[in-house]
Amino acid sequence: MQPHGAAGPLVAALDIGGTKIAGALVDAEGRLLVRALRPTPPRADGGTVMAAVAEVLAELRAAPGWPGAVAVGIGSAGPVDATHGTVSPVNVPGWRDFPLVPRVREAVGGLPVVLAGDGVAMTAAEHWQGAARGYDNALCMVVSTGVGGGLVLGGHLLPGPTGNAGHIGHISVDLDGDPCPCGSRGCVERIASGPNIARRALDAGWRPPAGTEPTAAAVAASARGGDAVATASFDRAAQALAAGIAATATLVEINVAVIGGGVSAAGPLLFDPLRRHLTQYATLSFAAGVEVVPAKLGTDAGLVGAAAVAAQGLGLFPLGV
Amino acid sequence: MQPHGAAGPLVAALDIGGTKIAGALVDAEGRLLVRALRPTPPRADGGTVMAAVAEVLAELRAAPGWPGAVAVGIGSAGPVDATHGTVSPVNVPGWRDFPLVPRVREAVGGLPVVLAGDGVAMTAAEHWQGAARGYDNALCMVVSTGVGGGLVLGGHLLPGPTGNAGHIGHISVDLDGDPCPCGSRGCVERIASGPNIARRALDAGWRPPAGTEPTAAAVAASARGGDAVATASFDRAAQALAAGIAATATLVEINVAVIGGGVSAAGPLLFDPLRRHLTQYATLSFAAGVEVVPAKLGTDAGLVGAAAVAAQGLGLFPLGV
Repeated sequence: MQPHGAAGPLVAALDIGGTKIAGALVDAEGRLLVRALRPTPPRADGGTVMAAVAEVLAELRAAPGWPGAVAVGIGSAGPVDATHGTVSPVNVPGWRDFPLVPRVREAVGGLPVVLAGDGVAMTAAEHWQGAARGYDNALCMVVSTGVGGGLVLGGHLLPGPTGNAGHIGHISVDLDGDPCPCGSRGCVERIASGPNIARRALDAGWRPPAGTEPTAAAVAASARGGDAVATASFDRAAQALAAGIAATATLVEINVAVIGGGVSAAGPLLFDPLRRHLTQYATLSFAAGVEVVPAKLGTDAGLVGAAAVAAQGLGLFPLGV
Repeated sequence: MQPHGAAGPLVAALDIGGTKIAGALVDAEGRLLVRALRPTPPRADGGTVMAAVAEVLAELRAAPGWPGAVAVGIGSAGPVDATHGTVSPVNVPGWRDFPLVPRVREAVGGLPVVLAGDGVAMTAAEHWQGAARGYDNALCMVVSTGVGGGLVLGGHLLPGPTGNAGHIGHISVDLDGDPCPCGSRGCVERIASGPNIARRALDAGWRPPAGTEPTAAAVAASARGGDAVATASFDRAAQALAAGIAATATLVEINVAVIGGGVSAAGPLLFDPLRRHLTQYATLSFAAGVEVVPAKLGTDAGLVGAAAVAAQGLGLFPLGV
């Protein structure tokens, strides 16, 4: 028996991040029929974090639609290792090479479980239901506290062997640039993430209005008010994103770059200079002309995408593109 | 009737560059059974260049093996446009959006014709017969007068929609760097190609031995003799190549990078610093550990690869990997 008149198989989706663990039953149209949510226990050991995941799954299993569930799809903060079914999310220190896939499989009575990174999941969602729909070759990105992404090539999601492909935040666009926490230099994330937009503005003398935090959103507000330093910091982020998108277009021939995440909420302040810089970096005939558009799905992208990853990986139902 | 005891279908291969137009009949084992060669007419109009291609094809059609030919594979200097069957090689100014595919199809009595860029063709060859054999995820590169490349993902060649994918020479690894003739800045080619290795050494005070040209090979010879400026120029090229390979590994998860072309003949002078820099730029678990190896096929890679591109594109015969 399935709720809301849903027909066909359902996928249990998990979206696992550093602050929350979300779950849902998702139907073949991408609708979220049942939801469950727990905070990610901060600084907890691996077992405690897994207990929170188990609670989310137990809530889904108690829903009337559960008998329709044929698989579990997981989108997790990375790095993940789909080959071994393990995860090591940077922001969940209790999980290092944690065997998430076998533990989840156990918790759901042996259903097949498909794992991918959160950038890959977001990409699957935007390709299935959002701004990348109808494009056979797409890069989707989240520009937020970090910068992540995923790829669709030849009409299909490209998770890569370990589920991390499309990780555009950590390609270097400035080989002599500032050290990145990942160990490299001049990564896209090191220049374009929200915290780095704020840091660069602060370093150049910008100050947030009294009583507000020095966030990228505050920088955006100042830029809209005409502050040149704030505007320049967004422009530099846009430049790095453009170089990364151009590199992707040159390497794998994409037609569209979809950008979501908190920083993308700056709108034209980010997208206008990004499109301008892109014409400078993407010059070869086959790489020029990439469309840059905002993501369409909001915070549900992780759950919708986790379901899509499982649906594509297991051939469960057509994704309608 | 087929020569040399070859069984199965043959592919007529064309390798088209700025200096020569090579052709061959290639069997399902990758053997070149018949060869033909013409110089590329310099600064000629499009029709004259096409006449040279027609002569190569006429020589192949006169060979006793020709009746076994079932398709034509073309690897051409780029950019190419496989969607429209046209080519615009930078070094063949008489060809701009030249309809190479229909012209070749006409010249061979209507056989199917598959077109790809020369970097894609070289990659197909190294995957089929060379250093990328047995790898499901590979980047193959030519480092020479220019820097080109191609990708194998999930066990299959990725030509991209227009046949230009893997064009690593024109991704920017230095977003504020020197202008590149392509219109961008800080491209891998702008730092790592042979002419740029020589130019950088000259700019820093290096001089070739009396009577020798200031080429990358001469820089390599000086570096082997202990010249610090020459060594530094190779190190910088290696650094740019490492940043480009790391970006590729981070975007699409490759396991091996195969490097051919004249500059790769420098051997350890290039490969040692490249592997060292790569550990700095490819830091995430799934991107670390990429093997860097020299190409195995020499100047025949273009012909072998053109045949492989057609064989994969048309499903003619298994490529044995």
